Amino acid sequence: MVIAEISVVPLGTGTPSVSKYVARAVEVLQQEKGIRYELTAMGTTIEGDLDKILMAAKKMHEVLFQQGAARVLTTIRIDDRRDKAASMKDKVDSLKRELDRRSSQ
Amino acid sequence: MVIAEISVVPLGTGTPSVSKYVARAVEVLQQEKGIRYELTAMGTTIEGDLDKILMAAKKMHEVLFQQGAARVLTTIRIDDRRDKAASMKDKVDSLKRELDRRSSQ
Amino acid sequence: MVIAEISVVPLGTGTPSVSKYVARAVEVLQQEKGIRYELTAMGTTIEGDLDKILMAAKKMHEVLFQQGAARVLTTIRIDDRRDKAASMKDKVDSLKRELDRRSSQ
Amino acid sequence: MVIAEISVVPLGTGTPSVSKYVARAVEVLQQEKGIRYELTAMGTTIEGDLDKILMAAKKMHEVLFQQGAARVLTTIRIDDRRDKAASMKDKVDSLKRELDRRSSQ
Repeated sequence: MVIAEISVVPLGTGTPSVSKYVARAVEVLQQEKGIRYELTAMGTTIEGDLDKILMAAKKMHEVLFQQGAARVLTTIRIDDRRDKAASMKDKVDSLKRELDRRSSQ
Repeated sequence: MVIAEISVVPLGTGTPSVSKYVARAVEVLQQEKGIRYELTAMGTTIEGDLDKILMAAKKMHEVLFQQGAARVLTTIRIDDRRDKAASMKDKVDSLKRELDRRSSQ
Repeated sequence: MVIAEISVVPLGTGTPSVSKYVARAVEVLQQEKGIRYELTAMGTTIEGDLDKILMAAKKMHEVLFQQGAARVLTTIRIDDRRDKAASMKDKVDSLKRELDRRSSQ
Repeated sequence: MVIAEISVVPLGTGTPSVSKYVARAVEVLQQEKGIRYELTAMGTTIEGDLDKILMAAKKMHEVLFQQGAARVLTTIRIDDRRDKAASMKDKVDSLKRELDRRSSQ
């Protein structure tokens, strides 16, 4: 299982607000099977199979053109760890445990 | 107020786990005044003044060398919107409202 | 035609040098048809069809595990402009022309 | 010496072309002392002292607002290696040598 972050940005839309575009991309993501996602202030974090994540990223990217964008910037950041399984929640929990351990020393 | 994401990665540490390094960087962030942060599965999102965010990013980057890293990759993604104020929470809430509005249509 | 940048980073390799890993990833890229690439100091820029770029990125990512990496961070940044065709060279040339125009004013 | 990549993107400008904005940012960069830069198809690579790079990134980011942008997305990717000195050219040359060595085997 891979953890990733996807960010899609339309250029030249005439307004600095992009939430309508991003909402449409998240709707596309909601229809994908076999992945989990979370919305953050800087993108969407996803966990799932690498092929499914890349396919989802492509669909999110494409749907912005269907919404009228002439240019789309998409960033996909992939964190793929194969020595042990880790979900998005595991990864954040592990960091919080380490922070707790340190603050109690 | 600016929203940003900071990710710090040590290279050549001999172990695929980076949580000890990242925890130390988050401790550094916790000591910074005038910013708010949230831990995500792919980095740390931050809101605050741009200068403070860049200073915090630099400190998080530097502390990994103090922890013994020989090479550090740091990514800073900045979303700076000046036509209206928006916190990290506002940004995610705005997206969720748009998703709710669409699903109820 | 899409312009993109791919960066692959192995974690926990025991050495801060990653050029052997990156070289193997570039060799994989060299075998892909229908794309052009350039090496930069911070990644590999690519132009070609979006599907081919995503497929190439996946292969570059996977080959690092075959080289022994236990964890791989891959970043794919996509710039997809559909109102006009532009190669990597066109994009840099356009920027340089704009710089020349300004400096001669 | 640090190697970095800076990308600045204006949102809501009404046109998918961003070269006028990016050109202005590069002009700002040209006035900075103690750094070297190269234009690539996906951003500007820079080498220099970390503080100077962050300062340059901030100025490039700010100048887009002076050009009329209401929202600016800036990405700074930093590769900081302290076990040996390496310029942008060294880094690409090292990769090319590794590729040559492999192709001649």
